[in-house]
Amino acid sequence: MKKLLVLPGDGIGPEIVAEAMKVIDHLRTAAGLELEIEEGLVGGAAYEAAGTPLPDATLDRAKAADAILLGAVGGPRWEPLEIALRPEKGLLGLRAGLGLFANLRPAILYPQLAEASSLRPEVVAGLDIMIVRELTGGIYFGQPRGVRELENGEREGFNTLVYSESEIRRIARVAFDIAAKRAGRVCSVDKANVLECTELWREVVTAEAAGRPDIELSHMYVDNAAMQLVRAPKQFDVIVTTNMFGDILSDEAAMLTGSIGMLPSASLNEQGQGMYEPIHGSAPDIAGQNIANPLATILSVAMMLRFSLDRGDLADAIETAVGRVLDQGLRTADIIQDGKQQVGTAEMGDAVVAEL
Amino acid sequence: MKKLLVLPGDGIGPEIVAEAMKVIDHLRTAAGLELEIEEGLVGGAAYEAAGTPLPDATLDRAKAADAILLGAVGGPRWEPLEIALRPEKGLLGLRAGLGLFANLRPAILYPQLAEASSLRPEVVAGLDIMIVRELTGGIYFGQPRGVRELENGEREGFNTLVYSESEIRRIARVAFDIAAKRAGRVCSVDKANVLECTELWREVVTAEAAGRPDIELSHMYVDNAAMQLVRAPKQFDVIVTTNMFGDILSDEAAMLTGSIGMLPSASLNEQGQGMYEPIHGSAPDIAGQNIANPLATILSVAMMLRFSLDRGDLADAIETAVGRVLDQGLRTADIIQDGKQQVGTAEMGDAVVAEL
Ligand SMILES: CC(C)[C@H](C(=O)O)[C@@H](O)C(=O)O
Ligand SMILES: CC(C)[C@H](C(=O)O)[C@@H](O)C(=O)O
Repeated sequence: MKKLLVLPGDGIGPEIVAEAMKVIDHLRTAAGLELEIEEGLVGGAAYEAAGTPLPDATLDRAKAADAILLGAVGGPRWEPLEIALRPEKGLLGLRAGLGLFANLRPAILYPQLAEASSLRPEVVAGLDIMIVRELTGGIYFGQPRGVRELENGEREGFNTLVYSESEIRRIARVAFDIAAKRAGRVCSVDKANVLECTELWREVVTAEAAGRPDIELSHMYVDNAAMQLVRAPKQFDVIVTTNMFGDILSDEAAMLTGSIGMLPSASLNEQGQGMYEPIHGSAPDIAGQNIANPLATILSVAMMLRFSLDRGDLADAIETAVGRVLDQGLRTADIIQDGKQQVGTAEMGDAVVAEL
Repeated sequence: MKKLLVLPGDGIGPEIVAEAMKVIDHLRTAAGLELEIEEGLVGGAAYEAAGTPLPDATLDRAKAADAILLGAVGGPRWEPLEIALRPEKGLLGLRAGLGLFANLRPAILYPQLAEASSLRPEVVAGLDIMIVRELTGGIYFGQPRGVRELENGEREGFNTLVYSESEIRRIARVAFDIAAKRAGRVCSVDKANVLECTELWREVVTAEAAGRPDIELSHMYVDNAAMQLVRAPKQFDVIVTTNMFGDILSDEAAMLTGSIGMLPSASLNEQGQGMYEPIHGSAPDIAGQNIANPLATILSVAMMLRFSLDRGDLADAIETAVGRVLDQGLRTADIIQDGKQQVGTAEMGDAVVAEL
């Protein structure tokens, strides 16, 4: 039986994960989904309980699981802590500890929510981009790093951007494989005109594409990509890029849709294990008020069923159910519009289950 | 007498600089602007003539000048060259050689061009952001850098992100001084939750703000900033950030206006010397066809008059003239709309001179 580890985390994490669990429980009883489920602590919640954002017990359970469902981590309460103890380190530790190098971040505009975008409707209608972000390398994890004292007595902060050929090659392959099931176009984003590290990135991605006649590869500098996402985002099919550039561009792309409360993500390793989470944050300001949007987490469950649990059929069912709920006019506060019906976190979860 | 060095560069550089020179020549004859003018080679043009994108003669003249007017550098023709010989290195060499650490990039929406934006009019109407980008440090110039071979035989590319306290302090001061003449709000953008270097950045910027009761300082992670620029850009007054994040965010912000053919920039050093250039690139595909928009370069002349030549009066005059030309309905191809009159590069330059 497949194993699922549930990590609710901080802020709105627990309440959105609770709605996703309603969906999973329904699929277990009604659709024969077999799952062994455990729960664990990560982020600020783990720090409060165990003094560390990633207790060994959590990492061990994560390694033993086929899939991990994560809510969100972080909040102002833990910002005064040193970097090593912050909630974010729990997330980064899971990514590194499990080798979750491939982060898939779809930016999809739901037609029912076209009005939510700050972009003109014609610019974003039908938007469907997949951002493939390298997640266990680059400047996020590069050594050496820290703060040192210079001879003149002042301090200097430093980090290292580093990628090996094999790290670049394996993320390029993931992007190509995903693109092969889509429009077949991959845009690799780098800063090869300035950074030697990404010059190597471009070289390796290009070489890897040579064996892939099914893929149309292009390259773009990151500054231009940030512009093109605003100007004409529909030009993109799959974008593949480094950890840091992917962090920035995937959030920019997500916001084009105007409804980041709707967007899921998957982080996969070479063994097919995956961690699934909404791309939005822990939103501590609205935590515990039953107003957060659980759909990104529910759609993360769909990605989990597709990529780690071999139940693409159930993934489709969830996505269809979410579409129907939107068609009914139900909206959480973040995506409310005139003439639609505002519902709370729990009601939205119930509505999806009812449609399933 | 003040000295100006003119560096037309590549692609559309020469033709847009020619229009800016019309404006300067007019101010010399009609408004008593006293200037000694020299011309030099940089970028691909310099590589073709002298085998290097930044000949010593150009750097020497730049050091001796009060202001530099640059067109643009780069083009596909020079992309196969190694990084050290590419046109971009000419630009980076000027920035480093002159210590032009403060890059000011306004993102302003001209009311006459509101339709050009891909964002909804209400989201961007009245947009006026100043991005202050650190320009001579960070990962652009950090050592060590390069490509090395690992023990297992594969290659690894690496770059170093590095900032000292004094580098951070001086760019923060520039941002604070600029904000003091605007709405007084500075948002410092970093990735302090992941990168130690930018944790120091946040600490130093915060400390520096302690002595500035006139400034309202906030901090934002770069991924969130990339989102907020799309969601609600008018929340920003001045943004201050690192070289790399500034490269990305300033291009994103510029594109919000939909008319990057309109946006100038200034790069200043501690002595008040400045390099002025349009933020758009060399656009080799439209070079030599009299269709490029010269207004960003002409507006760069306005910034030059204000920041390096002590003629704020003439800067105002140029900006007013550009506004009037837009009011007349004249547009280059990049900003053409129904009912407006399309003109070429030279005609646009002439129209600004006629309004002066
Ligand atoms: C919380 C933070 C460490 C994380 C990141 O930067 O990767 C987040 O922004 C994300 O994109 O998942
Ligand atoms: C041409 C390139 C080196 C340059 C940069 O990255 O700084 C450009 O993008 C810019 O922003 O001026």
